[in-house]
Amino acid sequence: MSQTVTASMIVIGDEILSGRTKDRNIGHLADIMTAIGIDLVEVRIVADDEAAIVEAINTLRARTDYVFTSGGIGPTHDDITADSVSKAFGLPCVHDAKALAMLEQHYAKREIEFTEARKRMARMPVGAEHIDNPVSLAPGFRIENVHVMAGVPAIFQAMLDNVVPTLKAGTKLMSTSIHCPFGEGTIGGPLGEIQKAHPDTIIGSYPKYQDGTFWTELVVRSRDADALARAEEAVRKMLAGLAG
Amino acid sequence: MSQTVTASMIVIGDEILSGRTKDRNIGHLADIMTAIGIDLVEVRIVADDEAAIVEAINTLRARTDYVFTSGGIGPTHDDITADSVSKAFGLPCVHDAKALAMLEQHYAKREIEFTEARKRMARMPVGAEHIDNPVSLAPGFRIENVHVMAGVPAIFQAMLDNVVPTLKAGTKLMSTSIHCPFGEGTIGGPLGEIQKAHPDTIIGSYPKYQDGTFWTELVVRSRDADALARAEEAVRKMLAGLAG
Repeated sequence: MSQTVTASMIVIGDEILSGRTKDRNIGHLADIMTAIGIDLVEVRIVADDEAAIVEAINTLRARTDYVFTSGGIGPTHDDITADSVSKAFGLPCVHDAKALAMLEQHYAKREIEFTEARKRMARMPVGAEHIDNPVSLAPGFRIENVHVMAGVPAIFQAMLDNVVPTLKAGTKLMSTSIHCPFGEGTIGGPLGEIQKAHPDTIIGSYPKYQDGTFWTELVVRSRDADALARAEEAVRKMLAGLAG
Repeated sequence: MSQTVTASMIVIGDEILSGRTKDRNIGHLADIMTAIGIDLVEVRIVADDEAAIVEAINTLRARTDYVFTSGGIGPTHDDITADSVSKAFGLPCVHDAKALAMLEQHYAKREIEFTEARKRMARMPVGAEHIDNPVSLAPGFRIENVHVMAGVPAIFQAMLDNVVPTLKAGTKLMSTSIHCPFGEGTIGGPLGEIQKAHPDTIIGSYPKYQDGTFWTELVVRSRDADALARAEEAVRKMLAGLAG
């Protein structure tokens, strides 16, 4: 039996919306989710604004099996993700004892003052579980189905590596990519007919344009290997007919 | 008097959510909006799914001055943006006469059959205005405050160039970037105090991590040059105090 598991993502940060930082976490999460058979169905990029974060969290945690966030968990005043996620769940945002102790020891060893700002990095909703951060120690956290992670790509990726084994895997979506030398206008009609005839598949058509030439990448996806093979054959037969 | 003009973006396409295509339009739109003084306040990436597109269009067109979409306006069956936007506005989606005539002439000149699939590229809500496409002719369109553009980056960028002069410019947000050799834990406390003392500015703190070293980029933004200068001075004084 195939089983669909869905995910969504919330990217938190004015710096992405202003263009000054270009996001690199969306594509990475998308790749990983596809690889383990979970459908990423929606991504939102929101500002460092409590109301915006709360709305996105509460909409998406009800709508998808898993929610992943990136950004806003550092020690400065504009890092409001922990407070906002707590508010979304109606939980107090507290200094987590385990995180505080871990950070205190970490800074003591390096003879760095454990400032109030640094203590902010131990804040999370009551009852949250840590997501380990092997890069710079300060943990992310999971509360119910929401995984709160850092925005710095190296840390985001390391945290996600720690989260993946805890997720229930979906039935992996198989896919095959077919190079199509024709533009979409040529194949659009017959491809639509093939999609109708193969409802257990998802057939995508992606126009490419490079150096003045158009071509098309066709991708057939399915959770059923036989259905995938049948649709792929139909697409290849259609292309052979056009080439002939 | 300063005036805030807001924008939002909807990226439409399964290929972005699956990770197979990495989006390049969000960062470009963000850069352009910042350059002309419009605040990009939210971005959503949604699937090729009518209900998802309609929801995103209707939420964001009510919430922001301008909405920009990318993707889903080609000739294949999975290109459902024109239909979905029409549905969001409660308007019929029709073959636009001007677009049809333009495309017909274009294909006739090149002795290419004007297929039903190609005719799909002339579809838009009744009353929409064209957004010219100098790359591959098939136009985008504007209906009220929603600008519907292609997903292929070269075409998205060319269409956006044609849209920018039609937008009412906001009061441009000025910004200054200050290199901070300290990590966020060191400056988080005093920076929060500076933000409180300079409410007409937005002070952002962006942790950087490269080759094992942490540093921080501080960005002060304001629509008021004097307020910006005062906040910048306060930040520089704080950093000089820490360095001393």
